[in-house]
Amino acid sequence: MEEEIERLPILRVGEQGRSEVEDTVVRELPLTIILNERELVTLLCSPTKLEYLTAGYLWSEGLIERKDEIREMKLDREKGVVRVETARAMNVPFKPLLASGGGRGIAPLSARKVSAGLQIKISASRVFFLMEGFREYSRVFEATGGVHSAALYEADNLIIFSEDIGRHNAIDKVLGECLLRDIPTADDHIMITSGRVSSEILLRVARRNIPLLISKSAPTNLGVRLASDLGVTLIGFARGKRMNVYAHGWRVVD
Amino acid sequence: MEEEIERLPILRVGEQGRSEVEDTVVRELPLTIILNERELVTLLCSPTKLEYLTAGYLWSEGLIERKDEIREMKLDREKGVVRVETARAMNVPFKPLLASGGGRGIAPLSARKVSAGLQIKISASRVFFLMEGFREYSRVFEATGGVHSAALYEADNLIIFSEDIGRHNAIDKVLGECLLRDIPTADDHIMITSGRVSSEILLRVARRNIPLLISKSAPTNLGVRLASDLGVTLIGFARGKRMNVYAHGWRVVD
Repeated sequence: MEEEIERLPILRVGEQGRSEVEDTVVRELPLTIILNERELVTLLCSPTKLEYLTAGYLWSEGLIERKDEIREMKLDREKGVVRVETARAMNVPFKPLLASGGGRGIAPLSARKVSAGLQIKISASRVFFLMEGFREYSRVFEATGGVHSAALYEADNLIIFSEDIGRHNAIDKVLGECLLRDIPTADDHIMITSGRVSSEILLRVARRNIPLLISKSAPTNLGVRLASDLGVTLIGFARGKRMNVYAHGWRVVD
Repeated sequence: MEEEIERLPILRVGEQGRSEVEDTVVRELPLTIILNERELVTLLCSPTKLEYLTAGYLWSEGLIERKDEIREMKLDREKGVVRVETARAMNVPFKPLLASGGGRGIAPLSARKVSAGLQIKISASRVFFLMEGFREYSRVFEATGGVHSAALYEADNLIIFSEDIGRHNAIDKVLGECLLRDIPTADDHIMITSGRVSSEILLRVARRNIPLLISKSAPTNLGVRLASDLGVTLIGFARGKRMNVYAHGWRVVD
């Protein structure tokens, strides 16, 4: 956790006056991904799990599909640079996530219906139980109020947990870890996120064939529409003993 | 406000059981910016102030500096496409926000110290007062829990207010409106945001020469360092009658 935060002196001001105190803020690292000798993007991220973030980002952007397409990955943590060589020569300098064809389509061609989890059900009390555990894991947020968390569960077991100052990065770290560590997802897997569910988040989860997505926050209308189209059960505002089910509520049982 | 939200049926689940209710979610629009006949990026945004968002995004990415560099801007709201022609031929396909030179530098070359606001002071009670007003303006958030807000104040007067599902977009809408409507910023101008203050947010505000940035949320360590280096008073966690001052606290008086 130490590498994720920085302590610094601040001025705290309230009705009772002001005081100099030591406070904790979250660290932010600019990580530049160089793909096949070309500068692809600079991600602003938390300085942990950088290889997983890189792999997850490349996968989310559709630049790689499988682990063995990565020939080499060299991270220079000091410089904040990661160099990746892929098997396919990638000439695309930057591929927007959505919307070729003039921005009309909301789902890219690669979006396909979740084929897993057709049998899986989840009870409301289990959702509440999982969210309680998820909250307990979110240590950096508690300390700084500045990060998002994402976690992958297999049934009741936490498999992967990530934190990042960016909500996409937190998810990409989980997905990149799945990729690099050959962790399969499907069937009874559940993704939990602290962040809002917009279309890209939903697309990432559906592409990984994860049938259940639970968020502490709100979804957007496109997030809901894609969840509905792609067969993902989408739960939002899962806080305390309440939640909203936005799509495929048949998986949520008493 | 109607265009920013969508009503849909959801399943609300609590300890007292479940009920079908109508809920409100925030709308998300994929907006593709085509700059000089080249697809630049697709922003996922709230469907308001799209011209301001476009101008603000181009300015934030360093692709334009002044309004008169935009020769033409044509928005096709139906298709979610905005076509922009600029005076300078822009051959850069995509310019990462930070970090050329291998990702080492945290501030791009264009970052310069805020030259305004050397006299301006703000009292704690005025910060609390401004935040109360800011909260009242944030209507969509109240309805959906799904958007960020950003506002520009000149002394006690609200000049511009924007909301968006993305915290960068909310700021870019404000900055784009400044650009397109020739609204100067400096001296006694204050930017308020609901979102976290990472390095890009700080750089945008400093580049506009705004000496005071107040956030409801947390800053990152780079946000704090840049505020300190660039002469911006950075206030975070401004909630109720409390706040933290992370940089240039000399502007905050009793």
